[in-house]
Amino acid sequence: MSASIEAWAEQIRAGDVRAVSRAITAIEDHDPQAEDLLQRIFPDTGRSFVIGVTGAPGTGKSTLVDRLAAYYRGQGNRVGIIAVDPTSPYTGGAILGDRIRMQGHASDPGIFIRSMATRGFLGGLAQTTGDVALILDAAGKQYVLVETVGVGQDEVEIVRLADCTLVLLVPGMGDDVQNMKAGLMEIADIFVLNKSDREGVERLEAELEAMLQLAPERDGWKPAILRTVATENKGVEELASAIATYRERFGNNEARQERKIDHWRSRLLALAGEAVLKLAVSGADGEAALDRLAREVASRGKDPYAAVRELLARSAGTRKSA
Amino acid sequence: MSASIEAWAEQIRAGDVRAVSRAITAIEDHDPQAEDLLQRIFPDTGRSFVIGVTGAPGTGKSTLVDRLAAYYRGQGNRVGIIAVDPTSPYTGGAILGDRIRMQGHASDPGIFIRSMATRGFLGGLAQTTGDVALILDAAGKQYVLVETVGVGQDEVEIVRLADCTLVLLVPGMGDDVQNMKAGLMEIADIFVLNKSDREGVERLEAELEAMLQLAPERDGWKPAILRTVATENKGVEELASAIATYRERFGNNEARQERKIDHWRSRLLALAGEAVLKLAVSGADGEAALDRLAREVASRGKDPYAAVRELLARSAGTRKSA
Repeated sequence: MSASIEAWAEQIRAGDVRAVSRAITAIEDHDPQAEDLLQRIFPDTGRSFVIGVTGAPGTGKSTLVDRLAAYYRGQGNRVGIIAVDPTSPYTGGAILGDRIRMQGHASDPGIFIRSMATRGFLGGLAQTTGDVALILDAAGKQYVLVETVGVGQDEVEIVRLADCTLVLLVPGMGDDVQNMKAGLMEIADIFVLNKSDREGVERLEAELEAMLQLAPERDGWKPAILRTVATENKGVEELASAIATYRERFGNNEARQERKIDHWRSRLLALAGEAVLKLAVSGADGEAALDRLAREVASRGKDPYAAVRELLARSAGTRKSA
Repeated sequence: MSASIEAWAEQIRAGDVRAVSRAITAIEDHDPQAEDLLQRIFPDTGRSFVIGVTGAPGTGKSTLVDRLAAYYRGQGNRVGIIAVDPTSPYTGGAILGDRIRMQGHASDPGIFIRSMATRGFLGGLAQTTGDVALILDAAGKQYVLVETVGVGQDEVEIVRLADCTLVLLVPGMGDDVQNMKAGLMEIADIFVLNKSDREGVERLEAELEAMLQLAPERDGWKPAILRTVATENKGVEELASAIATYRERFGNNEARQERKIDHWRSRLLALAGEAVLKLAVSGADGEAALDRLAREVASRGKDPYAAVRELLARSAGTRKSA
């Protein structure tokens, strides 16, 4: 490992904003240096408290995250925000979003905000987000807030990464909310009824309570339900206090440890898969082989399984000669 | 390949509903027989027209898909529906949904409906959905409708699989719709303004038109915009006609072929990754090794990259001795 990587790691440990930004870009770009860097800072991680914030579009996640970050900042903590936005690869919208949101915190080096794009054909969003969280962790952020849209496989992975997961709901959000709620039930440590000045909040809370009655208690925790109006900063302090209670009771219990181990189990598998595929399609040769095989399969000239056997034979060959 | 697999494949080719159901379950369960079966039926695929239907929760995707399926069925086609519902692993909601929806088509063997759950730690939803679409294709469905929630990495993969992608929008859907639209812009072949009897449909259409003016034309196609009220079956025939126009103009053009090749490129990579990881964690031994490594990493006793090297060494060893 080169001296420059160690210097870079040292800047990250010191919380240097540019070094952190550069590291995140390297992770997103699948720059090989990122791996060296992550390996180097790994022993300095595991200290941040990671809060996942999820909910459908329109539930006000960004505003709530901003307010919660400001609250923690006000308590003297350093805060990192990772906004995972699956729409960004198409729009560049993430960057614009950063700029707008940064304005509120621009003069404060204690809050670091980064929106994630889903770049690259491998690795996936959850993987990248996990690596970015490690960087912020090493950079000394006491709180890392990870904001994700909706529920999907990526979200589930991101939730495994979080120490505490908030699920946002809003009164009167249309037909499918019933379904969404059921799916979110299992991942929520705390439910946040945002925009709670809207009509229907009583009914929503009653429905949620009824569902929670039926759900099995997880490790003695019944998800708390809190009301907020993030745009008016209402309920944010109470929310922070509920998070603190959760942390106190579950921050280091066995179930929490198991969740972290689960998280690492899938991270390791994903990393291993990525490493193998890098070998299989490494170099211009590899890309050409993959392209040829994809064309053969698309034209039904070869079945996918035969094509995969060819790819893997390539990977084994590359590894042997490496 | 055993005689029973060939018999199963033959039943699928004949469109036998139970054989198809059994195949889908095998795919979802990562049953090793599924691979044999898919390999066997692969030459019989590539004939279905796959329509992707995506949009945020509450846009009425399920209803529209039902109506479109009924329309195609009325034209004498066989139709398959794959409802991809990321919330299902938690709730079993998918199965319930199937039952409710099947009632309308229960007596009609020409419509096959299946909701997908995201089971298993590997492979992912896009992969499974692609395999299920192959089964329905081999079973002689002229149309396969794939319904997905929102936009995420999985959705993007599913879109690559589709021959034509419909993006549903609804007037007055809240703050984040602006962002969603931008993300969806790139994947939509046709925009469907559903619930178009609601207030704000003119504004939504005008906004969309304005965005499309700015977007680059893709292969000479400017996405069509249609209005529907799926619950009242309004606009469904016009939508089918727009899909037919799209198909006529782009069904076999070069850009479409490239999209299919892209799709197979990522499918092959995913399959290859899955195959390698199966070797790495095969058997009770493998699971134990993965578990031990995940624990070491979670406790910061080992860094993830060292752990991955150990996993891969295992995989290479297993392959050599296999």
